Amino acid sequence: MRRVSFKDMDCSIAQTLEVVGEWWTLLIVRDAFLGVRRFDAFQAHLGIARNVLTDRLDRLVEHGVLLRVPYQDRPVRHEYRLTDKGLDLFHLLTAMRQWGDKWAAPAGGRPLQLVHDGCGQLADAVPVCSACSEQLSPHNVHTVPAQPGSVPLPEMPDLAPAESSRGEA
Amino acid sequence: MRRVSFKDMDCSIAQTLEVVGEWWTLLIVRDAFLGVRRFDAFQAHLGIARNVLTDRLDRLVEHGVLLRVPYQDRPVRHEYRLTDKGLDLFHLLTAMRQWGDKWAAPAGGRPLQLVHDGCGQLADAVPVCSACSEQLSPHNVHTVPAQPGSVPLPEMPDLAPAESSRGEA
Repeated sequence: MRRVSFKDMDCSIAQTLEVVGEWWTLLIVRDAFLGVRRFDAFQAHLGIARNVLTDRLDRLVEHGVLLRVPYQDRPVRHEYRLTDKGLDLFHLLTAMRQWGDKWAAPAGGRPLQLVHDGCGQLADAVPVCSACSEQLSPHNVHTVPAQPGSVPLPEMPDLAPAESSRGEA
Repeated sequence: MRRVSFKDMDCSIAQTLEVVGEWWTLLIVRDAFLGVRRFDAFQAHLGIARNVLTDRLDRLVEHGVLLRVPYQDRPVRHEYRLTDKGLDLFHLLTAMRQWGDKWAAPAGGRPLQLVHDGCGQLADAVPVCSACSEQLSPHNVHTVPAQPGSVPLPEMPDLAPAESSRGEA
């Protein structure tokens, strides 16, 4: 089954999903961050079908998220390493992990925590404004077109949560 | 085709993907942030098949990301609003948009920018340490198990980018 591509959408979220939005792909990238480098190690850790893993790794290499590097000559064997482009997915994975920790944590609570080497403390990533360093939230930002006339979307609305939402969590 | 579920994985990223990792789902959530609320508006804006949209909206409601609210009586019609749990996906979508802006931007450059209402400036979200406010990167953090013995994963390795990665982007 071939799926619809988001490639022609004028949206950076759609473009990101085009690169890392396939089922399994972000778990492969997560494992790369955790030090997994070789096909068999990905396969063993994820329990993923080998043909699916081959496909996902090939796409990540094609998109420049992973680099395929030979580590052995006879026979040639490769390992997969994060490029700068791949390493930059750290923020996306961190946001995803933190949302999961808060709203969808596994039964035993959150499995992993970050330590910031600079201060040595347990750390959550807090998104702040690049201009003034105040904390950002959906309630204190709005979006504007980067190029005038380029965005056929409605403006961001009043984002007060739906009334009974507190009971939903 | 039924896909493998990540539900039993002891990982908050896997749990998040279980909720929002389906193809299309994050674009629906993106549209909700941009003010889209009604089935026909999602359908028209995304160009998504109606049965797929129904399935994705139902799952988002089931998971408490969207709330289904009647806006008309005869016949009953509903709209979809972000809950607190849904609004909290702002950080994930922002990280995704920024990565796309940088590494996979549509041909015309990035389409949207954030304005921080507090200072009035164009803003990127910068992830800082919750303990000391220094900027976080994959190079200045490491992970530890939140509960001793709970993580069957290798430690985070030296994450210097793969050697020829600068040429890859």
